[in-house]
Amino acid sequence: MTKEKLAELFDRLENLRLDVLYIRDSEDHRDVNLKYLTGHPEDASLFIDVKNRQTILVPWDYQLANDFAEVDQVINIMEYDGGLIPAIHETLKSIVNSNPNIGVPKAIPYYNVRTIIDQIPNAEIIYNPQEIDSILEKLRSIKSYHEITLLKKSVSISNHLVNEIEKSMTTRSQSNIESEIDLAIFVDNQMRKLGAFGPGFETLVASSARSWQIHTYPRADQLSMYRPGLALIDFGVNAEGLTSDVTLPFVVGKMNNKMKLIVETVEYAHYEAIDALKEVNFLHEVAEVAIKIIESKNFKMPHGLGHGIGLTVHDSPDLRRRPTHEVLLNNWTDTPVKRGMVFTIEPGIYEKDVGGFRLENDVIITSKGPQMVTNSHPVFIDL
Amino acid sequence: MTKEKLAELFDRLENLRLDVLYIRDSEDHRDVNLKYLTGHPEDASLFIDVKNRQTILVPWDYQLANDFAEVDQVINIMEYDGGLIPAIHETLKSIVNSNPNIGVPKAIPYYNVRTIIDQIPNAEIIYNPQEIDSILEKLRSIKSYHEITLLKKSVSISNHLVNEIEKSMTTRSQSNIESEIDLAIFVDNQMRKLGAFGPGFETLVASSARSWQIHTYPRADQLSMYRPGLALIDFGVNAEGLTSDVTLPFVVGKMNNKMKLIVETVEYAHYEAIDALKEVNFLHEVAEVAIKIIESKNFKMPHGLGHGIGLTVHDSPDLRRRPTHEVLLNNWTDTPVKRGMVFTIEPGIYEKDVGGFRLENDVIITSKGPQMVTNSHPVFIDL
Repeated sequence: MTKEKLAELFDRLENLRLDVLYIRDSEDHRDVNLKYLTGHPEDASLFIDVKNRQTILVPWDYQLANDFAEVDQVINIMEYDGGLIPAIHETLKSIVNSNPNIGVPKAIPYYNVRTIIDQIPNAEIIYNPQEIDSILEKLRSIKSYHEITLLKKSVSISNHLVNEIEKSMTTRSQSNIESEIDLAIFVDNQMRKLGAFGPGFETLVASSARSWQIHTYPRADQLSMYRPGLALIDFGVNAEGLTSDVTLPFVVGKMNNKMKLIVETVEYAHYEAIDALKEVNFLHEVAEVAIKIIESKNFKMPHGLGHGIGLTVHDSPDLRRRPTHEVLLNNWTDTPVKRGMVFTIEPGIYEKDVGGFRLENDVIITSKGPQMVTNSHPVFIDL
Repeated sequence: MTKEKLAELFDRLENLRLDVLYIRDSEDHRDVNLKYLTGHPEDASLFIDVKNRQTILVPWDYQLANDFAEVDQVINIMEYDGGLIPAIHETLKSIVNSNPNIGVPKAIPYYNVRTIIDQIPNAEIIYNPQEIDSILEKLRSIKSYHEITLLKKSVSISNHLVNEIEKSMTTRSQSNIESEIDLAIFVDNQMRKLGAFGPGFETLVASSARSWQIHTYPRADQLSMYRPGLALIDFGVNAEGLTSDVTLPFVVGKMNNKMKLIVETVEYAHYEAIDALKEVNFLHEVAEVAIKIIESKNFKMPHGLGHGIGLTVHDSPDLRRRPTHEVLLNNWTDTPVKRGMVFTIEPGIYEKDVGGFRLENDVIITSKGPQMVTNSHPVFIDL
């Protein structure tokens, strides 16, 4: 979090006439904004005191905060009779009196809001997702130079892994990979050997027996990766806190005509979407380019075209078509393509009779335009 | 979920005069009650229609629900213009009219409640944690015969692993384990080779350099496991959906007097607590037995004595001392020790100058009394 971004946050919250913004991360509900705004990894309440332009953290683990948190004040809950909850309430009361406007992110647990309301007379809770959430999302969606540098380490390990997976799966060599779970274990280990902290999310492997499912549940199983048809692996590398996200699709054995059409359509949609990033103004236009290609072949894409990556695998911005339904349109604003954004492009088609095929790469919007930084591509396996 | 338990749930919700209970699991907020009540793994809204005694699921992935969900009705969101959100709202409106009492678990995201209130005239939101949450927690805290059978598979793999870890760490043999991350990778792989789905939670390894931290963050690193002092590994095995949870503490090299006192005190507290389960009526009494032992030696335990395990690693019930502070006491009820409960016993002491030591095992309350089903114990490593 740069000083410029923090100043921007205070300005924007002031414009909303907020007195305080309350952010909470706990086992109940993880909120990446805590780590983003403070560096403190987890389990704490954060108060952004708008009037006094200060940040106050109430962590569950005081020592951890001393090591990680960049805030103006850290509260030691051991100094409060009753611990965490009284510490949170007293801290809030030290910032606001009566009739305050208390902002919260939309997904904060319901009871956290209710217990706060009971503490402060006439508190007004402001949660409008178009305002507070989108301020935080916009901050997170534009990566700083430092964040891009950290992410590039994850990307570099991803790229090594893509090569290793391709080699191992096409030569069927040394690695003894047979089943979905073998491949998942191989990838999870190799990334750690290459210096990553670990997977950025649970590695998802689907053999041709079930690649047509949007959700493959459970995530990896004993099914053979060499069953003919369309298969895939979707994985992310977390090297320094930020995660990459790629999907490598496999074509195992010979393709029938429908498979060929799916593979060609997805590849075409993928590269046309990345090309479109050079020209369009808004992200939804990119999604619409890909969807148009897929629908022109009478297929459907049951998910969005892509999503931001960062401290979590699903960060801002989202790449979706502009909705037509009123309820959804009310919560919609067009998002411009901006320098510093990092997101996935991942068109996919899923058909029960032939399988699923998704190609996913990561794109950074640089000063010179969109740059595809990962190297995923269809892998053809001869049987 | 047995039919008896579902009937019990309907009865209890009826007693609270609820018209409907709304449960939602999404990437925003995971709620284990969804899987517990329906079998559907994730990403869905569940309506428990109390008056008509039926369950209605609105899943993001219709196909997944057809494979997994045991409910009376599954809604296909593709049939709703606008998708998920309109489908949720229309489903709710089909169950209740005006002035309904809508129950929600306390940690449901705030905006889910707000958008629902906007749909139904004069809806009253009931979230009291002593009522709704505790009904669900009580159901989950008593395991059925089927759940115990599934859990025992996880336990059995855990026990194999404890033996393998001990052998590998004491003989410093074949396995090439040197650093924290080596040990984490070894455990994560071995459990999958032994037939587990994977870790029940992120495996936590702390060498003596940082075992004194309550949270070791990041979770595993390049620090040597053979640095003299107190170290530990905390891991869980998820074999069939339910997770075990054990902590194996290591004593590396010679102990000084303070270390000896810590090791003895934790071991004594651990076994006295398990013994106490035979005699006491309430779980807080067990926690108090262990805390008394630890505090009698002028140490402090910075966390609870244990917690239930099940579909998540932190399930009901909790083993804590009865609070004295008014705020906490207001949210407190004594929990009786009951047959079918499965929980951890994990006393620990953490001192910055000598390190941290925690011994954790899993206990099932059977018809014949408490049974310690895992085999964790201090491991002494000669240098």
